[in-house]
Amino acid sequence: MSDTDFFCSRWVQAPEWVTAQTPGALPAGFRAAGVACGLKASGKLDLGLMVADGDVVTSAIRFTSSAVLAAPVVVTRDRVKAERIRVIAVNSGNANAATGGRGLDEAARMQGAAAMATGFSEDGIAVCSTGVIGVQLDGRKVVRGMLAAGHALGPGGEPAFAEAITTTDKFDKRASLTVLLSGGAVALTAQAKGAGMIQPRFATLLCFVQTDAVLDVPTADLLLGVCVKRSFDRISVDGQLSTNDTIVLQASGASGVPIDPESDDELRFGQALDALLRQLALLVVKDGEGSKRVGRVTVRGGNAGGVEAVARAVANSPLVKAALHGGDPNWGRIAQAIGAALHGGGAIAYDIAIEGVQVAVAGAGVGHDVAALAQLVAGDEVQYDIGLPGDGHETEVFFSDLSHEYVTINADYTT
Amino acid sequence: MSDTDFFCSRWVQAPEWVTAQTPGALPAGFRAAGVACGLKASGKLDLGLMVADGDVVTSAIRFTSSAVLAAPVVVTRDRVKAERIRVIAVNSGNANAATGGRGLDEAARMQGAAAMATGFSEDGIAVCSTGVIGVQLDGRKVVRGMLAAGHALGPGGEPAFAEAITTTDKFDKRASLTVLLSGGAVALTAQAKGAGMIQPRFATLLCFVQTDAVLDVPTADLLLGVCVKRSFDRISVDGQLSTNDTIVLQASGASGVPIDPESDDELRFGQALDALLRQLALLVVKDGEGSKRVGRVTVRGGNAGGVEAVARAVANSPLVKAALHGGDPNWGRIAQAIGAALHGGGAIAYDIAIEGVQVAVAGAGVGHDVAALAQLVAGDEVQYDIGLPGDGHETEVFFSDLSHEYVTINADYTT
Repeated sequence: MSDTDFFCSRWVQAPEWVTAQTPGALPAGFRAAGVACGLKASGKLDLGLMVADGDVVTSAIRFTSSAVLAAPVVVTRDRVKAERIRVIAVNSGNANAATGGRGLDEAARMQGAAAMATGFSEDGIAVCSTGVIGVQLDGRKVVRGMLAAGHALGPGGEPAFAEAITTTDKFDKRASLTVLLSGGAVALTAQAKGAGMIQPRFATLLCFVQTDAVLDVPTADLLLGVCVKRSFDRISVDGQLSTNDTIVLQASGASGVPIDPESDDELRFGQALDALLRQLALLVVKDGEGSKRVGRVTVRGGNAGGVEAVARAVANSPLVKAALHGGDPNWGRIAQAIGAALHGGGAIAYDIAIEGVQVAVAGAGVGHDVAALAQLVAGDEVQYDIGLPGDGHETEVFFSDLSHEYVTINADYTT
Repeated sequence: MSDTDFFCSRWVQAPEWVTAQTPGALPAGFRAAGVACGLKASGKLDLGLMVADGDVVTSAIRFTSSAVLAAPVVVTRDRVKAERIRVIAVNSGNANAATGGRGLDEAARMQGAAAMATGFSEDGIAVCSTGVIGVQLDGRKVVRGMLAAGHALGPGGEPAFAEAITTTDKFDKRASLTVLLSGGAVALTAQAKGAGMIQPRFATLLCFVQTDAVLDVPTADLLLGVCVKRSFDRISVDGQLSTNDTIVLQASGASGVPIDPESDDELRFGQALDALLRQLALLVVKDGEGSKRVGRVTVRGGNAGGVEAVARAVANSPLVKAALHGGDPNWGRIAQAIGAALHGGGAIAYDIAIEGVQVAVAGAGVGHDVAALAQLVAGDEVQYDIGLPGDGHETEVFFSDLSHEYVTINADYTT
């Protein structure tokens, strides 16, 4: 896709007041950098800094819901003012997870080094790590790299920052949007990294969002919370929950364009953020380790818990995912996933349609053009619609297929 | 393995009063047959009959817990006296699942044909199907095949019966045991089929067990229930729950050797059945589609729900399973699975050992000989021990690895 074709999925509609730009420039009031500090044996960029200058910087943050938290998540959660994050210091190549007290010390040291490198106080510095779990972070490399990154900080540092946060990612997940509001245009940019270990309940790994709009703290928190629920919360590559997931929204206020609570502008900006995060989340799914197709399952029914359970069961079923990979319209596996999600009862009168072709009604298969359906499921995106008894609840999950490459990547990651 | 090496896993100890024989012979009072009726395009055997004659036939049965039940499960559950199953009529090549009212009619017709073929009444005839979901069963083929199977019934029919129940199985899962009791020797035989779609909560697909012991109905039901909980309930190939899982225990009583309730003989027979079903369950895991290694995760801790959730999360984690496949001692993924299972809290002080090598203590990695561990996890069976805070609860799950072949098999099953 070309740089401005950011909105490439049929499942995401960008509002007309949003324009995608070529990524690379940051909103006013931001500087960034990415350097190589030696954590990645390949010598690739592995350490990034993102700094919001400005006088009225606000922020919001969300973390993984795992009970096993990486050290940087603990340090950021416990020692940072979530609403005043000035600096994001991030490394790839090592997750600093399952590293005990020494890992916490290293995360704090990383935070301190970022404070030295940027001149901001530590309670405004979020630290993030991504990479292998269970290996101690080499703090000397991090400290040295942080000082180099501090020197390299600039408004043109976004590409290096975006590269420095990646691990097994195969393509960029970043965007630069212009959002037209009543007070003028604001910039909205983001960098995400994903690939494996992407899970249903808050599944971003790392995502950083910048805007030069003037956002008050409750609005930033509200908008980030709502949009994460509709994006990174609704995707699954492999049903695995990372120990390190973190998403941060920073507003520099440098444009001087305000977004007032409960205003039309809040709605317009919120829809822009929604489209941005949904498309980024879909890119994370698309870049799922070894993925070649993206599926979307929509489930409707009268029971909220059942609707959610079925959507997750279908999206995480290795049988459904392998069939998606093969372009095989094997809807019996969807029936299987429905039954497993709702197990323990009588017969369920479910309906299933794939790409608009009805394949099952009231729990039984119905005649359909198998060859035509096989053609439809060979595309890049495949839509599954499931109806359960009753009305009133609806949900969706986006998921990647299960490929040989996933196995190759994950059978031999550490050795 | 040779025929009498049935107990091949280090995780199953056969009691000394149990001897494995070359499979093929049925216990006294049983006849079986397997024929090809054309459901499998390959022309392989696809229809089996197992008949218990004798005057004091007793039985017990367990079904899948899926909410989407195959037609034969519904018919057997609703129309058969579970404690007096004379005949098992089974087909492979078609699951008769998600087939609606017509599927129920076909399952009943299959039952009726088995009644005609064997001379027993329909309420003593269990019907089972396995194969593709969502395709109508061709009842004419089944009826014709059933009559042929009825003519073929004999005490030497076990091998053909065992073959007729298989789908993607790569090797036999059957056994012939002699169990020494105080009143003499009894025979205990079984045939199972598995491969894909094998799930945590009752995961056998199909398993049929025969004995010539004299078993009263409550004892048969109790022993089957307990032993299933320790075997087929504790395995996972791919976390998928079949619509068709059925296990039947039949006792002909033809040996005249009684197993009295709460006697030493009940214990001895129960331990024999336990070892039989655990080894069969392990063979099902070992034959998991594409599997080359079997893992066993044991979890101990103070919270029963947490212990169970962690064991399931580890056994079903595609990351852990891919690492098992690759012989990669990537214990960080186990930490990830622990966190995901218990998500939503503070830090968990978990311990992890792999093949007896401690790799994490109190939530942090500890030094170990990585090269030696890599050697240990390259074997056929890999043991994972996880400790959670507290005491008093312990569970285990056996699981297969995730391989390229699993993807190959499942990406293109129906087309």
